[in-house]
Amino acid sequence: MTFHSMWAELLPIGRDSASGGYRRYAWTGADADCRTWFQEQAEARGLTYEVDRNGNQWAWLGDPAAGNAVVTGSHLDSVPDGGAFDGPLGVVSSFAALDELRSRNARFTKPLAIVNFGDEEGARFGLACVGSRLTAGQLTIEQAHRLTDGDGITLPRAMEAAGYDPDTIGADPERLARIGAFVELHVEQGRALDLSGDRVGIAGAIWPHGRWRFDFRGEANHAGTTRLADRRDPMLSYAETVLAARREAELAGAVATFGKIVVEPNGVNAIPSLVRGWLDSRAADQERLDTVVGGIEKAARAYAEAHGVDLDIVRESFTPVVEFDHALRDELARILGKDTDPGLKVPVLGTGAGHDAGILSGSIPTAMLFVRNPTGVSHSPAEHAAEDDCVAGVTALADVLEGLACR
Amino acid sequence: MTFHSMWAELLPIGRDSASGGYRRYAWTGADADCRTWFQEQAEARGLTYEVDRNGNQWAWLGDPAAGNAVVTGSHLDSVPDGGAFDGPLGVVSSFAALDELRSRNARFTKPLAIVNFGDEEGARFGLACVGSRLTAGQLTIEQAHRLTDGDGITLPRAMEAAGYDPDTIGADPERLARIGAFVELHVEQGRALDLSGDRVGIAGAIWPHGRWRFDFRGEANHAGTTRLADRRDPMLSYAETVLAARREAELAGAVATFGKIVVEPNGVNAIPSLVRGWLDSRAADQERLDTVVGGIEKAARAYAEAHGVDLDIVRESFTPVVEFDHALRDELARILGKDTDPGLKVPVLGTGAGHDAGILSGSIPTAMLFVRNPTGVSHSPAEHAAEDDCVAGVTALADVLEGLACR
Repeated sequence: MTFHSMWAELLPIGRDSASGGYRRYAWTGADADCRTWFQEQAEARGLTYEVDRNGNQWAWLGDPAAGNAVVTGSHLDSVPDGGAFDGPLGVVSSFAALDELRSRNARFTKPLAIVNFGDEEGARFGLACVGSRLTAGQLTIEQAHRLTDGDGITLPRAMEAAGYDPDTIGADPERLARIGAFVELHVEQGRALDLSGDRVGIAGAIWPHGRWRFDFRGEANHAGTTRLADRRDPMLSYAETVLAARREAELAGAVATFGKIVVEPNGVNAIPSLVRGWLDSRAADQERLDTVVGGIEKAARAYAEAHGVDLDIVRESFTPVVEFDHALRDELARILGKDTDPGLKVPVLGTGAGHDAGILSGSIPTAMLFVRNPTGVSHSPAEHAAEDDCVAGVTALADVLEGLACR
Repeated sequence: MTFHSMWAELLPIGRDSASGGYRRYAWTGADADCRTWFQEQAEARGLTYEVDRNGNQWAWLGDPAAGNAVVTGSHLDSVPDGGAFDGPLGVVSSFAALDELRSRNARFTKPLAIVNFGDEEGARFGLACVGSRLTAGQLTIEQAHRLTDGDGITLPRAMEAAGYDPDTIGADPERLARIGAFVELHVEQGRALDLSGDRVGIAGAIWPHGRWRFDFRGEANHAGTTRLADRRDPMLSYAETVLAARREAELAGAVATFGKIVVEPNGVNAIPSLVRGWLDSRAADQERLDTVVGGIEKAARAYAEAHGVDLDIVRESFTPVVEFDHALRDELARILGKDTDPGLKVPVLGTGAGHDAGILSGSIPTAMLFVRNPTGVSHSPAEHAAEDDCVAGVTALADVLEGLACR
């Protein structure tokens, strides 16, 4: 089973023919097809297949109970109309790296496992990294029971419908205690490697990030007959705030995005009574993020006041900076620096995206490898990585696993 | 049946207890209750009640076939969460004016009719003034058959479900040929009378107005990992265009509103691929409207180009200026100028809102009376007119009807 043939098997699963994007949502039919593929890959290699209490899939080489295991993997689910690489590249590369190590006749001194974490993208239930959060005890059983999809189906009912036992979910410290290191390979969601000219990089930290809801409340009125001077139009303050977010992010070298909006009554001939916009902002460190969001909030309040509009700002979620384990990161750099290919540099990158590796880094030593993304496009059908770069990623992952598990 | 008691009977029909607004959509239960009320009012006064081939209700005093009839009335349906006055004030005032004329022992020399036009607001099928448009031949039977509500129910099926025969709809020139003048009383949807200190005004013209759809297409991407410089974010061009619309409208003394928006994929952590915004713009004359919309379009194209965003602009609807019949307007001014109340001035106002009277003005002489709206709020539960002003409106309408139909 080559990288190529594995990739070809996954490509059609959950792909929407109209958009060209993937719709592999947790516990749906497309997700089940991905899971079947994972199990077949595990069994074809003689690995011990198991599903943990939170629905994550594992494929073990060696005795899981021996301890100090080296684990690699990623996820197979997608955002709505996502690309082919975000998640699957890490899982396929894990199996391909194992194949390469076997072809090198590598002798494993520690157990090795490949993992597929469930519901990483959160596309169905609105919370990312549910599988790893549950395992790490960062999501309580009560919170998980309240997760509900757009059709009113709860997470437990969805798991049950997919043939899994929802009564077993919860923190799994015994499992984590057997793991010495987790390494996740992922397509880069940005252009840092493209700009530096490198195929593969190592994650330094996940930027702190948060989501803020801005509720601009004005007065619904007739768009044809209400004098401009008599209006309390919340769309104007919203528009000014969108532009302020861009300015503040530019000043701080951060990112800030208004990508979601709800308008009431949302009629062509009605001045809105409510414009609700969501800000997503991330920066390399907490101080910079505070500066950006503080600047946007201040500007938004001034705009709202000028238009006679009420403004409520609610922080809906926040994740502090995640620094990956420094010793493991340095070990990866050391391993990859010894590579026979003198051209393989290993820059250390920050990233604005969350990952299962970020969740697990609170419990066990974790590290990430990034593979070059020539356009930086992510969460889109246009997401891409060149075949040569994917092969370089497999080689790098094999080197890392050999360095960690074979000595 | 006093103005008060008629008003009190209508108030609870179709009122949403949560919003306090009205949801009287064409051919629904609330609409049927309003229609029953209309029929009862007609019969209680000994008027000849009939429904025309397009579902509009008529209450006749005298012989409809005599010709040169004087007609007054308005509509009883509402926008979503609309106010109590828009429409019903005209119908209630019509019955109250007839009562006043009878108490004056007025002698009618022409037939008089009170009308309730169906589906004026277009809240259900997306097109305003369906009842009057059909009657005036401004909406073909084929077009009417294609009108569909949000649940996929077509206009003919909705009429049928409400007990009306949809096979009879279509232009009704014989009916229009019997009408010498149509006068619609309406609550003002603006503050012109409040600012001038008058209770009642006469319509001069309905401003030309249109709706334009702006499709800003950029590139969906990850909000956390895509560098600002690599983005093609259509939300930015949209926001700039919203502000340009306000500026252009201010410069020209017109109105321009972005009140409706659709965003794809509309995710908190996704740079949008599409922001679709609808512009509603109106001005006192065509040249001014062209200046406003041309200015907004030019600005939007420049913003889109600067952000690498594609922009399509489509004019979805357009209504040229409607000048009400000058002779009838002057006649109303003459009648009301003779009023015994020396304080009753009759300013002539332009208006940005469409009305059945505007539709009919292409076929028969029409005029409108406006009653003061102290806040100008319209299409909202907060819409209001003071009782004294409503009474002044009834008196003015009675004077007009007496002047037109009793000599």
